[in-house]
Amino acid sequence: MTRYFDSASGVPEEPGLIVTVEADLPALDFAPGLVLRPLVGRNLLASFVRYEPHSEAPLHAHEEEQVFVVLEGEIELELDGVRRLMRPGEAAMIPAFVPHAARTFDGPAHQLDVFSPPRRALLELLEQRPGREGEGTPSESTSPPGG
Amino acid sequence: MTRYFDSASGVPEEPGLIVTVEADLPALDFAPGLVLRPLVGRNLLASFVRYEPHSEAPLHAHEEEQVFVVLEGEIELELDGVRRLMRPGEAAMIPAFVPHAARTFDGPAHQLDVFSPPRRALLELLEQRPGREGEGTPSESTSPPGG
Repeated sequence: MTRYFDSASGVPEEPGLIVTVEADLPALDFAPGLVLRPLVGRNLLASFVRYEPHSEAPLHAHEEEQVFVVLEGEIELELDGVRRLMRPGEAAMIPAFVPHAARTFDGPAHQLDVFSPPRRALLELLEQRPGREGEGTPSESTSPPGG
Repeated sequence: MTRYFDSASGVPEEPGLIVTVEADLPALDFAPGLVLRPLVGRNLLASFVRYEPHSEAPLHAHEEEQVFVVLEGEIELELDGVRRLMRPGEAAMIPAFVPHAARTFDGPAHQLDVFSPPRRALLELLEQRPGREGEGTPSESTSPPGG
């Protein structure tokens, strides 16, 4: 059991990053009633998604594997044709190319997606957004500027 | 913007999986006061961690990239020597080999780690645990048994 905290001996190539999601991450309006805020790594991309009531991420599929976690509120996830109303404490693993959709009903919701590899369509959205300058400044990087 | 929901045309090799974290995932006691419940994918491993008050994940580092998200309570994250008290709405990106530690003070906490690639030490813990049979049964798989 103790091996879990054994330390690997490699050299970090990047600093760690701590963020306050709503304050530090850029907000992308990618569908009506949905706003996502991405935290981008090398192998991982975390996307914090706010849903207004009666909003929908339509049925889609992608190559990137996805973990889906409900943070607040209720979200109906459709996964492979099965629908389930999900709440905090519930999560889904969505393998590559499995079709899925998500929607809210009368209340708002907050949800986390983590993709690996980083979802290409989201990186493109991030690249294309207007007024990129000054957005996404981390509240705290663990290395000095330029480090 | 609409390209975000374009569907890729690959064929899924695995079904989707929806879980209730506390009911469906195996619980691993991997350090005093800490219990983790892993949801394992191919590229991703999500680990839901419950902390008792005054518990600690000691300083360690690993090759796998990690997203750290506070779900409930307050957790002090030490990342690259910088300490910050984190709450829900805050998250960290921990690149490969960056040393980190986490601890609670007077209250319990709940936290999500997502690793890519799946963290090997955690897969080993999962493999070695006693009484593996019957644990980790999903509450709902989106494919029929054997599918």
